[in-house]
Amino acid sequence: MKRIFLVVSYDGTNYHGWQLQPAAVTIEGVLNRAVSELTGEEIQVIGASRTDAGVHALGNVAVFDTDSKIPAEKFSYALNQRLPEDIVVQASREVDRTFHPRRCECRKTYEYTILNRTFPLPEYRNTAYFCYGALDVEAMRRAAAAFVGEHDFAGFCSAGAQVKTTVRRIDSLEIKRRDDLICIRVQGNGFLYNMVRIIAGTLIEVGKGALAPEKIPAVIASCDRAKAGPTAPARGLKLIGIEYLQG
Amino acid sequence: MKRIFLVVSYDGTNYHGWQLQPAAVTIEGVLNRAVSELTGEEIQVIGASRTDAGVHALGNVAVFDTDSKIPAEKFSYALNQRLPEDIVVQASREVDRTFHPRRCECRKTYEYTILNRTFPLPEYRNTAYFCYGALDVEAMRRAAAAFVGEHDFAGFCSAGAQVKTTVRRIDSLEIKRRDDLICIRVQGNGFLYNMVRIIAGTLIEVGKGALAPEKIPAVIASCDRAKAGPTAPARGLKLIGIEYLQG
Repeated sequence: MKRIFLVVSYDGTNYHGWQLQPAAVTIEGVLNRAVSELTGEEIQVIGASRTDAGVHALGNVAVFDTDSKIPAEKFSYALNQRLPEDIVVQASREVDRTFHPRRCECRKTYEYTILNRTFPLPEYRNTAYFCYGALDVEAMRRAAAAFVGEHDFAGFCSAGAQVKTTVRRIDSLEIKRRDDLICIRVQGNGFLYNMVRIIAGTLIEVGKGALAPEKIPAVIASCDRAKAGPTAPARGLKLIGIEYLQG
Repeated sequence: MKRIFLVVSYDGTNYHGWQLQPAAVTIEGVLNRAVSELTGEEIQVIGASRTDAGVHALGNVAVFDTDSKIPAEKFSYALNQRLPEDIVVQASREVDRTFHPRRCECRKTYEYTILNRTFPLPEYRNTAYFCYGALDVEAMRRAAAAFVGEHDFAGFCSAGAQVKTTVRRIDSLEIKRRDDLICIRVQGNGFLYNMVRIIAGTLIEVGKGALAPEKIPAVIASCDRAKAGPTAPARGLKLIGIEYLQG
């Protein structure tokens, strides 16, 4: 028996999110079936990040245990033969059997993409949030700086999450503009439910001039969801990667 | 009666190409219906470039005649209310009633995008051609130079086209690499049927080392379709824009 570590990329548009559901097509469900058919075992993968419907990933992580004789590095090739075009395994390797993708310390990187122009572009309809009015990226950058560091992000969390603490550490939050695309890139040691989308929604309010960047520290300190911006749409969000400190 | 000029962008994935067909969904068909419903007239647009199934556009051009009182510049906004997310009008304006988008002199720009890495990326599955083996971009650039200028491109044309002459002028052919994406950008005064996709397919052969860049002048001079590379898949092709010299 060995534990296999997968790096999984997907376009979340056509899925009801990561997590297995009895009556809906999910990334986890499709992966379970591909791994089970390949190995002839009944396998349930364990995912690192249970992304919401419509959210994308370049490098989510999943592990599973198998007695299969397939070499660990070959699972990526073999699984891609069985997966649809919108789910692709980017790498596979063996990990210690004690490694658990949600319990080990890690750093996650997310990107939130905004398309900021007069008319939307069809190419980005599923992978960016379209925003009509010109956004002030400089103001967004000043606001972004206030999120970096360890804070209680209780105000940046949707209801329904069961967590011991709402304190999280953001290591960096950068905003880049390339032509009409604005990309918010955030790294941290874990994120609350919808936290990146609420940060993105808040930064968009700043970009629109509806919220002053100087007010962000007070918005964070209030721990009041109503003081932060709206939850930005799922389509703009992409889990770029997860870096494990051990394992 | 006035003639309206539209700049139309679309993701061609879900369409059977531009041209109207009785039993298939096409860009032209969807545009005709949107314009007709908006104006209350029975309108058929005239398109500049009848792109194939799966080919995309940032700026294809279409015109139509109308008695509508809607100001020319407002058609873009009004049509986008009626169009699906994968077809977006980027601009509208009035043109001279003698202007015909296929009969007026113009310069067209196309891009062909190749995703060149070990595993495909779900995000680009419909907008780039996935190529596994590392391509030699320097060799592709040397080959590209041979296409520039006026040539008889009879060998770079699929059967079925009815044209007076197969001579065309390519003004520029540039190849850029950004991370795993290779973009072939070509400008010229018109292209034969499948010409850009056959040029792309030929350059990919060069990038793979299957065809020496020094042989390209002889391949062009042969006017023999069999000597050129395969027709690269539609999904990688995008009509970037059309610049009219008058009108």
